[in-house]
Amino acid sequence: MDSRVTPGSANAFVAADWVREAQQRVEQALSDWVPAVTPADLGEAMRYAVVGGGKRLRPLLVLAACMAVRGNHDAALRAACAVELIHAYSLVHDDLPCMDNDVLRRGKPTAHVQFGEARALLAGDALQALAFELLTPPEGVPPAMQAELCRLLARAAGAHGMAGGQAIDLASVGLALGQGQLSEMHRLKTGALLQASVLMGAACGAVDARARQALAQYGAALGLAFQVVDDVLDCTQDSATLGKTAGKDAACGKPTFVSLMGLAGARAHARQLLDEARQVLRTSGLAETQALVALAEMVVERQH
Amino acid sequence: MDSRVTPGSANAFVAADWVREAQQRVEQALSDWVPAVTPADLGEAMRYAVVGGGKRLRPLLVLAACMAVRGNHDAALRAACAVELIHAYSLVHDDLPCMDNDVLRRGKPTAHVQFGEARALLAGDALQALAFELLTPPEGVPPAMQAELCRLLARAAGAHGMAGGQAIDLASVGLALGQGQLSEMHRLKTGALLQASVLMGAACGAVDARARQALAQYGAALGLAFQVVDDVLDCTQDSATLGKTAGKDAACGKPTFVSLMGLAGARAHARQLLDEARQVLRTSGLAETQALVALAEMVVERQH
Repeated sequence: MDSRVTPGSANAFVAADWVREAQQRVEQALSDWVPAVTPADLGEAMRYAVVGGGKRLRPLLVLAACMAVRGNHDAALRAACAVELIHAYSLVHDDLPCMDNDVLRRGKPTAHVQFGEARALLAGDALQALAFELLTPPEGVPPAMQAELCRLLARAAGAHGMAGGQAIDLASVGLALGQGQLSEMHRLKTGALLQASVLMGAACGAVDARARQALAQYGAALGLAFQVVDDVLDCTQDSATLGKTAGKDAACGKPTFVSLMGLAGARAHARQLLDEARQVLRTSGLAETQALVALAEMVVERQH
Repeated sequence: MDSRVTPGSANAFVAADWVREAQQRVEQALSDWVPAVTPADLGEAMRYAVVGGGKRLRPLLVLAACMAVRGNHDAALRAACAVELIHAYSLVHDDLPCMDNDVLRRGKPTAHVQFGEARALLAGDALQALAFELLTPPEGVPPAMQAELCRLLARAAGAHGMAGGQAIDLASVGLALGQGQLSEMHRLKTGALLQASVLMGAACGAVDARARQALAQYGAALGLAFQVVDDVLDCTQDSATLGKTAGKDAACGKPTFVSLMGLAGARAHARQLLDEARQVLRTSGLAETQALVALAEMVVERQH
């Protein structure tokens, strides 16, 4: 991603610097908050699944949305880590033999390969619980904000969000889904948590109905763009670049945006969604949307 | 359990009536709140794992503790269902082939036998998320109470609670644990959620430090008694009576209180714990502890 200077801003915003600094804060917080010392070394598997991996897109979205609403930084850092824990647990469970049966993740052996299926399963379960524990500290974050953050995360993770999307994915292998059904599956499977990241960041501050609506639309467009680009990369990059097994969805007969729209069509769709995300931010009434814009660009322009 | 009339109470308390009525309320609420209509029928597996089964001990503890502190009934019913969802998800995951590989639960095929491993796994994940969603309604429960309930449940479910206890259990097969280690395993694996049920009920009202401490001790004693009795029943009852595979822990080389203390010793230990639970309630300063007493008796005197 290129560095950018936003004209008219009191402090020049450099996207690459902001991203790097935010990623460092998230890495440090995850390392502090995911326990190393637990009964029967369960924490070892939990940390393996979480610490030191990934682009941290969801946490960055939380922090960027918090910045846009000038919200509570401490709450946002907890929310950023909580949403990443939900993402990390879903990957651990998704990689299990009874699901995708994958052996490579972020360039490392998957958790069940490293620790066995039973400990990987439990580590995933404990990561989900830890997400809600992080959101509910005894002090430091207003209780109403804690409750709202839990509400947003629980909905996004559950049967009408991520888990529901995974259930559709499971049921869709070998079926010829149309674009509407494919979008619906991804809206839940990956979109719900990405959108929730934005809304959780917004919940760390005060936000009016118009801005909230704009952030929800931004989150939806970004979530869909993320998946479209994922499908493009899955068929244009190799496993080493992606850090996971490439071409797997197509090989399994799973529908993708590329199989549906062609490679050029999928790329054009991603650009459209980026334009839409930029547009809703422009009309949101929010002042500091630079980081949100930068993240949308990062999602669409990424190479892995 | 015998019906009892508590002298001196304005309304005579009949334990069996209270239990039956509370169970009915919980069944109805679970049926209302665990969704039937979800993406890809995931709700079907969720409901299978939750609706119409079990003694509902944890929900009853929430409601009984709420009664003892004269707390908020609506909050308590949500908390009662939330804790049961955590319990239900843990059973679904615990029964999976990579864990206990059990095929019978509450007299029915286990969830993965009925729905396949992948859907059972996802249904469990979605049940955990739903627990926190139930605790955070947009209105009707004060936000500070919502946050406190989430905090208690998340801690009890996670690596320093139930999931951690399961990790110890997994690591302990074939090892000769002493009574201290065995108690520690059960304190986490089953005790943490039972104790949290009591504390969540108390969090639905105002409670002073002495009463809170007494309720925590009551919950700890009851949790341990529950496991001791479980071990006794596991080696004295058949599978049909228990509704699950009997004698399995002993056959797997897992340590039990019976293998450690003998049958008579384990029974005596359970009676001691019941006395302890009664005693702490007497000195708690709480007025309406009849339901809590009745539940402790139910736990120790149950036959399945």
